[in-house]
Amino acid sequence: METTANSLVTVEKSKTSKIDQVDFDNLSFGSTFSDHMLVCDYKNGAWENPKVVPYGPVSLDPSAKIFHYGQSIFEGMKAYKDTEDSTWLFRPLDNHKRLNISAKRLAIPEIPENYFMEGLKTLLKVDEKWIPKNEGSSMYIRPFIFASGNGFHASPANEYKFMICLAPSGAYFSGKVKVLIEEKYSRSANGGVGFAKAGGNYAGQFYPTQLAVEKGYNQVIWTDDNTHEYIEEAGAMNIFVRINDTLITGPTSDRILDGITRKSIIEIAKDENINVEVRKLTVSEVVTAAKDGSLKEMFGAGTAAVISPISGFGYKETDYDLPELKEGFASLLKKRITDIQYNKAEDKFGWRYKL
Amino acid sequence: METTANSLVTVEKSKTSKIDQVDFDNLSFGSTFSDHMLVCDYKNGAWENPKVVPYGPVSLDPSAKIFHYGQSIFEGMKAYKDTEDSTWLFRPLDNHKRLNISAKRLAIPEIPENYFMEGLKTLLKVDEKWIPKNEGSSMYIRPFIFASGNGFHASPANEYKFMICLAPSGAYFSGKVKVLIEEKYSRSANGGVGFAKAGGNYAGQFYPTQLAVEKGYNQVIWTDDNTHEYIEEAGAMNIFVRINDTLITGPTSDRILDGITRKSIIEIAKDENINVEVRKLTVSEVVTAAKDGSLKEMFGAGTAAVISPISGFGYKETDYDLPELKEGFASLLKKRITDIQYNKAEDKFGWRYKL
Repeated sequence: METTANSLVTVEKSKTSKIDQVDFDNLSFGSTFSDHMLVCDYKNGAWENPKVVPYGPVSLDPSAKIFHYGQSIFEGMKAYKDTEDSTWLFRPLDNHKRLNISAKRLAIPEIPENYFMEGLKTLLKVDEKWIPKNEGSSMYIRPFIFASGNGFHASPANEYKFMICLAPSGAYFSGKVKVLIEEKYSRSANGGVGFAKAGGNYAGQFYPTQLAVEKGYNQVIWTDDNTHEYIEEAGAMNIFVRINDTLITGPTSDRILDGITRKSIIEIAKDENINVEVRKLTVSEVVTAAKDGSLKEMFGAGTAAVISPISGFGYKETDYDLPELKEGFASLLKKRITDIQYNKAEDKFGWRYKL
Repeated sequence: METTANSLVTVEKSKTSKIDQVDFDNLSFGSTFSDHMLVCDYKNGAWENPKVVPYGPVSLDPSAKIFHYGQSIFEGMKAYKDTEDSTWLFRPLDNHKRLNISAKRLAIPEIPENYFMEGLKTLLKVDEKWIPKNEGSSMYIRPFIFASGNGFHASPANEYKFMICLAPSGAYFSGKVKVLIEEKYSRSANGGVGFAKAGGNYAGQFYPTQLAVEKGYNQVIWTDDNTHEYIEEAGAMNIFVRINDTLITGPTSDRILDGITRKSIIEIAKDENINVEVRKLTVSEVVTAAKDGSLKEMFGAGTAAVISPISGFGYKETDYDLPELKEGFASLLKKRITDIQYNKAEDKFGWRYKL
């Protein structure tokens, strides 16, 4: 057992490493895990000191509230290697802030910033060799908190676990995605938890997404639950639409996640002198634009998928294809943001964070 | 290792029992667990045979999808002892049916009826001594299914665990409850998962309920997320309102749980020649009735809380008290349903199920 300089985070190193078993040239998304993980317990009204320990199973009582009442939240982040072998994070304090926004809504105790940041940095340093160096690959970082306290009473748990796991990963989607604009099912309610990265927001999307996949689509674009007329988000991504030369995305709300890639893309697009509109966007506006040819591009934006170009969408049993653009906004913005993330270009926004 | 007659369920008995440590005269709700539990794994596309094993911790990979994507569903049931020491269940096949309705919406594989019923009966027989005999106590039964498969891709798991745990329990609420009619937060969306017993439906209620508790209320009555004008349910209970001599409850929908206590109460009330209306119920109707004195009773109905009389409600910063009734519908209906459950009266509906 060794402790780090600041002594907030203790480190217990694994006796063996699995790194030699990993094919870094053929990484899928989020299915390979590094040698260590961060664990931090909430007990007796306080977060205990974070610990880096060997990656391994979590043991819970069958009555732990995570199994019954869905009290769980998470974040998605990435670490990037540059050509000098330095490691970079992207706006990590925003992830910490958002995790606590989710925590509050789910009645989970907030995690102090230094526990999050020192825990994260210590873990990444211990498993730094695991960060992929291949083009398009990165270290996907999954901080999460769940209710580990026990009992069948439907009320908040008295114990929680904050953990961080590391998954060296390739692309989330391979190629362009075809989406279905949803007319029946919904992702979130007004006054609900749609803005939080709460576990339950994801489980509710799986069945409607399966139905869409059976029809030949990759993802669902969610609309508001009352009229199904307003475009919200795609579950794992925020949605951007380009009509003529204007880039449009919906405003965040209590139904839509305040995506870090989303807000970064808005700033980069403005910096590129692209006309950006953050406003409510109707399905009929998008359909009309698809019909008259003014719909030039659609893409999703999120940490896992980065920028994911959409090849076409389905709506009311009709498919609409988008044009093939060589030099669209999506490819321009993706290059700008990944160049910042991988330390290939100037970071005028101050988003890069050196490990 | 012994197997039951039907050989579907294997039994591994605990070498020791915790039963002597339990004070059956002072049971709280859902915090004492019996010696055994049922475990049934879904792997390689099929549910494996259910096993009764000693109650003990569940070990999961940190990437198990239950921790990240909220894929979990549950049921609440009870077993009752009569004065002859026979054990009774109440409409257990309805719980199995509803578990599979929840499973479908959460993209969880459905559990076969015989796995559910034989697993449940075998477990109850092994731990039959744990079923409380005290007035007002019962064995709370918690069947649940969660995603045990691994990976950070936001998609359904490929492995699941179906489990049943037993918690000898006293009352869920002690005394009458005071409720707050919600004007801002919501429990469910049109096209969402509100009708399912999904974990995420509960986590989302904790924070608004905490806010209500801070104001002196016990529970929140949820309203629709669009207008907050229609009364839906109380999260752990369906809601009944008595205006003059008419008993009113909202219709089930994709936002409201199809409660087994709810539908039983409707049938018993009809059998008592009470005028029952299953229709949309507005907040303004209830407030008007409270003001003019025609609001006689409100109560919640659910497996855990049985029938829980409401002493008053808050709405728009005003509190409305309900009259103290000696012989109201709530006490009559509670007696009728618990007499059936505890085998104290004829069961003309065929709901009782002998173990």
